[in-house]
Amino acid sequence: MKILKFALLGVGRIGKIHAANIALNPKCNIECIYDIDSSAANKIAGLYDSTVALSPEEAISNPNVDAVYICTSTPTHTEYILSAAKAGKAIFCEKPIDLDINSVNKCKKELEKYNVPVHIGFNRRFDPSHFSANERKNKGEIGKLEQIIITSRDPSGPSAAYLKVSGGMFRDMTIHDFDLACFILQNDPIVEIYATGHRLFSTEAKEANDIDTAMIIMKSESGVLCHINNSRHASYGYDQRLELFGNKGMLISDNQTSTSITKYNNESTNSKDPILNFFIERYEVAYKNQLENFANCIINKKPPTVNFENGRIALIIANAAYESLETKKLVKINYS
Amino acid sequence: MKILKFALLGVGRIGKIHAANIALNPKCNIECIYDIDSSAANKIAGLYDSTVALSPEEAISNPNVDAVYICTSTPTHTEYILSAAKAGKAIFCEKPIDLDINSVNKCKKELEKYNVPVHIGFNRRFDPSHFSANERKNKGEIGKLEQIIITSRDPSGPSAAYLKVSGGMFRDMTIHDFDLACFILQNDPIVEIYATGHRLFSTEAKEANDIDTAMIIMKSESGVLCHINNSRHASYGYDQRLELFGNKGMLISDNQTSTSITKYNNESTNSKDPILNFFIERYEVAYKNQLENFANCIINKKPPTVNFENGRIALIIANAAYESLETKKLVKINYS
Amino acid sequence: MKILKFALLGVGRIGKIHAANIALNPKCNIECIYDIDSSAANKIAGLYDSTVALSPEEAISNPNVDAVYICTSTPTHTEYILSAAKAGKAIFCEKPIDLDINSVNKCKKELEKYNVPVHIGFNRRFDPSHFSANERKNKGEIGKLEQIIITSRDPSGPSAAYLKVSGGMFRDMTIHDFDLACFILQNDPIVEIYATGHRLFSTEAKEANDIDTAMIIMKSESGVLCHINNSRHASYGYDQRLELFGNKGMLISDNQTSTSITKYNNESTNSKDPILNFFIERYEVAYKNQLENFANCIINKKPPTVNFENGRIALIIANAAYESLETKKLVKINYS
Amino acid sequence: MKILKFALLGVGRIGKIHAANIALNPKCNIECIYDIDSSAANKIAGLYDSTVALSPEEAISNPNVDAVYICTSTPTHTEYILSAAKAGKAIFCEKPIDLDINSVNKCKKELEKYNVPVHIGFNRRFDPSHFSANERKNKGEIGKLEQIIITSRDPSGPSAAYLKVSGGMFRDMTIHDFDLACFILQNDPIVEIYATGHRLFSTEAKEANDIDTAMIIMKSESGVLCHINNSRHASYGYDQRLELFGNKGMLISDNQTSTSITKYNNESTNSKDPILNFFIERYEVAYKNQLENFANCIINKKPPTVNFENGRIALIIANAAYESLETKKLVKINYS
Repeated sequence: MKILKFALLGVGRIGKIHAANIALNPKCNIECIYDIDSSAANKIAGLYDSTVALSPEEAISNPNVDAVYICTSTPTHTEYILSAAKAGKAIFCEKPIDLDINSVNKCKKELEKYNVPVHIGFNRRFDPSHFSANERKNKGEIGKLEQIIITSRDPSGPSAAYLKVSGGMFRDMTIHDFDLACFILQNDPIVEIYATGHRLFSTEAKEANDIDTAMIIMKSESGVLCHINNSRHASYGYDQRLELFGNKGMLISDNQTSTSITKYNNESTNSKDPILNFFIERYEVAYKNQLENFANCIINKKPPTVNFENGRIALIIANAAYESLETKKLVKINYS
Repeated sequence: MKILKFALLGVGRIGKIHAANIALNPKCNIECIYDIDSSAANKIAGLYDSTVALSPEEAISNPNVDAVYICTSTPTHTEYILSAAKAGKAIFCEKPIDLDINSVNKCKKELEKYNVPVHIGFNRRFDPSHFSANERKNKGEIGKLEQIIITSRDPSGPSAAYLKVSGGMFRDMTIHDFDLACFILQNDPIVEIYATGHRLFSTEAKEANDIDTAMIIMKSESGVLCHINNSRHASYGYDQRLELFGNKGMLISDNQTSTSITKYNNESTNSKDPILNFFIERYEVAYKNQLENFANCIINKKPPTVNFENGRIALIIANAAYESLETKKLVKINYS
Repeated sequence: MKILKFALLGVGRIGKIHAANIALNPKCNIECIYDIDSSAANKIAGLYDSTVALSPEEAISNPNVDAVYICTSTPTHTEYILSAAKAGKAIFCEKPIDLDINSVNKCKKELEKYNVPVHIGFNRRFDPSHFSANERKNKGEIGKLEQIIITSRDPSGPSAAYLKVSGGMFRDMTIHDFDLACFILQNDPIVEIYATGHRLFSTEAKEANDIDTAMIIMKSESGVLCHINNSRHASYGYDQRLELFGNKGMLISDNQTSTSITKYNNESTNSKDPILNFFIERYEVAYKNQLENFANCIINKKPPTVNFENGRIALIIANAAYESLETKKLVKINYS
Repeated sequence: MKILKFALLGVGRIGKIHAANIALNPKCNIECIYDIDSSAANKIAGLYDSTVALSPEEAISNPNVDAVYICTSTPTHTEYILSAAKAGKAIFCEKPIDLDINSVNKCKKELEKYNVPVHIGFNRRFDPSHFSANERKNKGEIGKLEQIIITSRDPSGPSAAYLKVSGGMFRDMTIHDFDLACFILQNDPIVEIYATGHRLFSTEAKEANDIDTAMIIMKSESGVLCHINNSRHASYGYDQRLELFGNKGMLISDNQTSTSITKYNNESTNSKDPILNFFIERYEVAYKNQLENFANCIINKKPPTVNFENGRIALIIANAAYESLETKKLVKINYS
């Protein structure tokens, strides 16, 4: 079996997760690691017996490397995507591609010159429960889809420093929900969005002039209505629910707890553990499945499951959400 | 114990439910019944040993009567409310008060002359689960309320004939959800609404030029966001859920099934019965509790729990929902 | 419609429940009440506009009376059953018939002379969930029945005074579970029993020389195995579960809570209310359905659903349980 | 970090699972593999870059090897345990140690000469939910333990060939439940057992003269009652439940499904997927945790968590179960 060799760019929080998964996957190997902080790169390289590259270019151009995993900070994404494309490497890039749609569009145009697969890291599509709910909907289990309800609340919010460069809640957090809706709707694009939100509690959001609570309604071309609700804090954990309502039934992909224990005492009954606390725990399997999917696409020369255009679309919807928030009006979405 | 004597106006579907509950309640008695269809009135009167009145006026003016229960068609409501007010009787009126806000306002002004309690039939406030969720929220169990999610889907839609006089989905169906949101929010009025919806499936709705699917976002003065989703058909029964999200926890008042049985076989596990099918089953206890509350308010000379103004507010929100639907904009709600 | 007139003997805790249900049922009326404590009889009679009888004989022989409801203390049951039988009245008798199988057998023989229906108050057969589970099993939903698991734990134990006359845990508490097993097994009699138990915690049980914790295994003629577990205390409420395991599936009739609310916070998720606390709450509907069934059997001249023989059988099994407890051996059950 | 090197004896169904887990665990490596079928050994060795040993002795005596993993057929266990003990290697042996208690006792005596840790493969102790339920009981969450209910039903039974050498249901299947009860009871030994069972459906069990359905009651020294129910077929999957009932509460470690999806349609609601189908799926994490525990015990020179004596005790209880089944009496358990 051919073992795919990866150049891993960026070993921050999310990069470390990908590193561990690449090391565990029998089809994959970490060939070299680059990080702006070379000691971080050295540390992770030591764990997985990989080399350290002194620059992203060195990592990308390494002739052993089949695929480049881009986990660096957002502003570097398009540059590294294009470098990797020029080098003919398969590309995995963490979301978002970029915060500026013009940069994304420019990158898209440039990418057309190169015939390389670009995968975008929308992990939720690979969560076994969300994925299976979508599969079962596709098989007709609930008839014709009519409504989607996405509940997406983080256990706690990020720092003000992060918020200042994240592009704001719709671009750093809700963007996952926008993509999840697109995943469910497939060839039925979202055409309208109304978004509202405000800052209810977060001092960090205040400092960054961002919101911490939001509700959104979108409509697809065929008339499916989709609601998203978001909060930057949920006392009971990372609330991640997906409800698909069709004319013949409903599927709910519910939250998950770390055990299957229920407790009964004089205060309450049927009590389960707190739900899995954040994305690393909740989407642990999703990250593994995403990597497996990436590797299989390369090996079997199949097109990406979540591609550059999916990343671009999610950003366009996020931008439209901000426009709606400001104008207090329904916004028609223009994907061109 | 003083037994309250009721004049019951209208013994259609909902009137029959109220008749049975009045007969069962040891504090209440049906003194007389009026219905435009006198044979219907005779039939129900026979069941409960009451007399039949030949006109609403006769029923209302009956000197034995303490309270008037108005279950006739919507256009007659304000007239009978005022007749009963003039006669000094306690009043229970089914929702909606009227479909025309001007009539409601006129009736309101007229009512100020009379010191009679007017209760409006928003049954959900008396559902033990919705009620208890609200009580627990009030006691601080989930901290500060931040979001409300109301799922409200009928098992199947009404006839085109009904739809043509019902005032449309927001006024005949969603009006319950608007009132439920007001119930939860108490002294924190809803100030903004965005409503969308369309006709996805219903031929009856088409004939009546109405919608069958809707999603709504509202905001309260203090910043609580509230989402409502509606459908005129739910294959799995009458979907009635209420989610209260606060900064210290969440309470969900979930659907109910007729038994506590779960089933396990090679196709699925943990399967429960279909949820209770429609309002008569789902809100059976709510109707009983509503009557009990009405009787207790009269006996103890307490003001109504759900009063005329609550009925007026719900209609104003429904009207604003239609305005938003047409203008595709956020609508500021004016209660004056 | 013919209204059945009842003589109610005994208005202690359980008698009061039956009185309220008879008063609520439109087919039934309380004609007269007897209680050894005449002030108690007067009080209940006042509530329901019935007369008071000065002796059980007076109540039974009242020519208006169609049916006698026996809720007096256990030692009086067989006497009143026979008096009522002689008077040609339909009979409802609370369980157990008697603590002494010889008295029961004598009564049975005597009863053969009279053609009156005798119903025994095994309420669980009328619980909507247990009843429906059995119906669905009968319809083949789980294939061939192979195992029954009955969990039956009281929230707290009775007084030592009660225990000294109750016949012990197997005769006052487990007897319900024995009958529930018989109800499920229908024409497939229980042929063997092994019972164990001891006193783990109860000072009242110690005083009465009784057990407070037990486990039982029984086998039916066809080979169905049945497990019962009992405790005299359950911190989380009145634990009443029934599991039917067949070769094509399983049905569990689970505990019930007073609302359909679930709670989520940083300590636990999916938490429901404590389960319904004791038999009056848990089997509230069962008592109503039992009365309805009794009334319908009389009106439609149908044989009792739970008859004298069912009461005799349950006592025989309870006696065999005590024999097994003492001998530490499997006991073959002899019903003759 | 020291990497532990393993000799793996036997790469049948269970051996392959252990092989994959050893390969995945960063603390462990497969040094060499032995199987009676050398082509099977070669195949697995190829997957994990290990060598192949031509005899168990060669594998055990390999100087690189730190630990021996015994996954061969049951009759070889004691021989390989003693060989490995003589070679001074840490030992992991699949359950049961042997079907003959005399062989086990002889092996035990022999083992006393060698100071090597022997771990027995009772995987359920390492299931996160069962494990956590026990931990929480130990921390006092349910007060004093009073009852244990173990439901343990296989999705389908083994072949007659397997049954003829397995030692029968109590020794090949229930033995896990016996050990789970011991795990929960810790220093409170089981002193009495009553077991019943028979053949209800299985032609394979008939051929092997074994039972396919069983119910058991055991009592611990301190008076905890424990019920086990078993079936060789469960249409809805591998039914594995553990209920711990204490004087202050109850913990249930419930079944698990592959997703967190619930389904609602006109036939049923709240339906989950079939439960995980058999031990490989249900105890996937348990196998990984068991290996991690074994490795950590060796590295940290801690005594085994599940040791030889635990294996011996479970067999003694299984033997007592058969004695009770035959004599239809309560059997006192003698551990000497």
